[in-house]
Amino acid sequence: MDTPKGYKYAAIEGNLKYSGRLDLALIVSETPCVAAGTFTANKFQAAPVLVAKELVETSSRVQGVMINAGSANACTGEEGIANCKRSLELVTSRLGLTPDAILPASTGVIGLQFDMKKWEAAAPVLAEAVGKHTGDDFAKAIMTTDTFPKKASRSITVDGKTVTIAGMAKGAGMICPNMATMLGTVITDAKIDAAMWKRIVKTGVDSSFNCVSVDGDTSTNDCVLALANGASGASITEATEAEFQQAVTAIMRELSYQLVQDGEGATKVMQIMVSGAKNDAEADQVARTVGHSPLVKTAIYGKDANWGRIVAAIGRSGAEFEANDVQLTMCGIELFKNSQPTDADFDTLLKPYLEKRDILIDIVLGNGEGKAELFASDLTHEYININADYRS
Amino acid sequence: MDTPKGYKYAAIEGNLKYSGRLDLALIVSETPCVAAGTFTANKFQAAPVLVAKELVETSSRVQGVMINAGSANACTGEEGIANCKRSLELVTSRLGLTPDAILPASTGVIGLQFDMKKWEAAAPVLAEAVGKHTGDDFAKAIMTTDTFPKKASRSITVDGKTVTIAGMAKGAGMICPNMATMLGTVITDAKIDAAMWKRIVKTGVDSSFNCVSVDGDTSTNDCVLALANGASGASITEATEAEFQQAVTAIMRELSYQLVQDGEGATKVMQIMVSGAKNDAEADQVARTVGHSPLVKTAIYGKDANWGRIVAAIGRSGAEFEANDVQLTMCGIELFKNSQPTDADFDTLLKPYLEKRDILIDIVLGNGEGKAELFASDLTHEYININADYRS
Repeated sequence: MDTPKGYKYAAIEGNLKYSGRLDLALIVSETPCVAAGTFTANKFQAAPVLVAKELVETSSRVQGVMINAGSANACTGEEGIANCKRSLELVTSRLGLTPDAILPASTGVIGLQFDMKKWEAAAPVLAEAVGKHTGDDFAKAIMTTDTFPKKASRSITVDGKTVTIAGMAKGAGMICPNMATMLGTVITDAKIDAAMWKRIVKTGVDSSFNCVSVDGDTSTNDCVLALANGASGASITEATEAEFQQAVTAIMRELSYQLVQDGEGATKVMQIMVSGAKNDAEADQVARTVGHSPLVKTAIYGKDANWGRIVAAIGRSGAEFEANDVQLTMCGIELFKNSQPTDADFDTLLKPYLEKRDILIDIVLGNGEGKAELFASDLTHEYININADYRS
Repeated sequence: MDTPKGYKYAAIEGNLKYSGRLDLALIVSETPCVAAGTFTANKFQAAPVLVAKELVETSSRVQGVMINAGSANACTGEEGIANCKRSLELVTSRLGLTPDAILPASTGVIGLQFDMKKWEAAAPVLAEAVGKHTGDDFAKAIMTTDTFPKKASRSITVDGKTVTIAGMAKGAGMICPNMATMLGTVITDAKIDAAMWKRIVKTGVDSSFNCVSVDGDTSTNDCVLALANGASGASITEATEAEFQQAVTAIMRELSYQLVQDGEGATKVMQIMVSGAKNDAEADQVARTVGHSPLVKTAIYGKDANWGRIVAAIGRSGAEFEANDVQLTMCGIELFKNSQPTDADFDTLLKPYLEKRDILIDIVLGNGEGKAELFASDLTHEYININADYRS
């Protein structure tokens, strides 16, 4: 992974909930950063979401991100917020930083209060470890039911200088971000104005993390936190914004794809493209109804060309369209139009494609301008294994 | 099962798709009936849905219901409608009835055209069998992935005469009716006016079939067809409507419960009660978001008191409420209020309840008048087994 200049990492076994695995991670920039963030649309926002949101809006001294796995610190009331702030103090004080310098994020079980004795023991170890680890270690430490760490990076040249952007994310379950994914961190050494950075992060998230779904469940903790510390010496201006945006979005899309690919128990990535809708919102509604349908997901898992389930999902999506205008193409094979199946021998034609990981589902609803795209995983035995006893 | 007077049944191995199992069923009344029906809200309504809907509206000679399993005759265009009508003619002509006398319903794979040669062979056998079978046989013949036949019946006394109502349904997967369930048939020997019968059927469906969910997938074929032949000699009047309504609703609720209980792979029935919402629609939205959440469904399957997943689902439902007003009670144990967990030792307290089949989830959103109820199944390994290779 390419690493932006001026950041240090720590990734430790904090023993906050689990033993014998990394569960506490920190990125610290050597200098204050321009911070941006997008946060879950869930009405029950976790304590770290509330705290990070406020810091992104008010603090001019942000220079790090701390993430713990094991406990989400969500649905924990005032006590949860106090615990979150205390956990930040325990770490910032040891790094010579003010308490508003680190953005928090948490993932894990909802409804448990932090065990602060464990945090008091872990904080000095974490602070001590800063600089001893890498971005790859950070990506590993934030995993929960993930089977591989998600990371992506890219360097571009701006004004003759190299600007690097890196992203690390965790996901797997409770994924259907509406605003942000589970936990994503994007860092860069570009020098950039706060308003521009916020705009770039929002634009990137809208066409990446907000277009993926594992199980339709938007978490209480979803967030993407983004830092820019300027260490490259290269400034992003209006002239270079587009190129920079492209790189940031590309990294976010790479991470998002990895999230779906590693969706709990997933074996497939459906890429659902909807066009011709009345508007984008209705196209999105259709894409999500198809992508969340347990019957579609299990058919794809079973490598079954049972496309009728897709059409049925389109039909119950609530979007407005003429049934007769709808066209369904799967992996390049036209299957349904004019309200009836095409002549394609779809079982034979689709068979080789259904063996692959990526399944392209192309839905045309009519002549409208609305379109949407969604990456969604399948629904498998392993998903049930993981979620029927996640807490135990 | 109590059986209303004046109906005859046939349930045969039609060999329409499967061999060696009942797949074609018919109820015929000795005299013309008052017919009512509720039909799927899916935009792609199957051919039999379109045909039955028209017959319910226009025909005064309805006196039967014919159901086939194996092919849904959905997404089959004009050819599908022609095949549906032809299948009715093949049977009505042999029974001395006009072609508009039988309401059709189909269940099975979407997107396949009927094999009319098989229908030509099956129709005489079906007509010949009328009167040789029972309502129980009918309920068996309409099963697809169902593991037991769904039926309910009840008799009440009206004007000193016995009126009997019986219901038969099939379901299991693709169940989240919005208008009707997969296939339900309700017959009675009451004498009743068409407008009243339609009203009673709609009212019953709204608080029964429309309140159940297995997988959130509303089928292209959902319908409830209802016949009243008057053979009991007892008339339902305004004075006795309420009592009759109660009996009809009770039967529909019994059938609905059976549908969830026999949801594909289901081991649990969640009864989700939402109150205090801004209005009924928002309460329903919350109930459905919780009832469809794969994470909630798998936790219930795993007998895991992981109530945070329920709160997270409430939070992403899109309903309006103050997070601080929300209260969650499960199986009588108060778990969450004032934005934080109660002091209950919920793991210990809930353990015995989570072993049971029926799981009561009680959600209070605030002080509004809106309320809703939903029966939903869990999500299990067996659901995946069934749906990953349903077609094969």
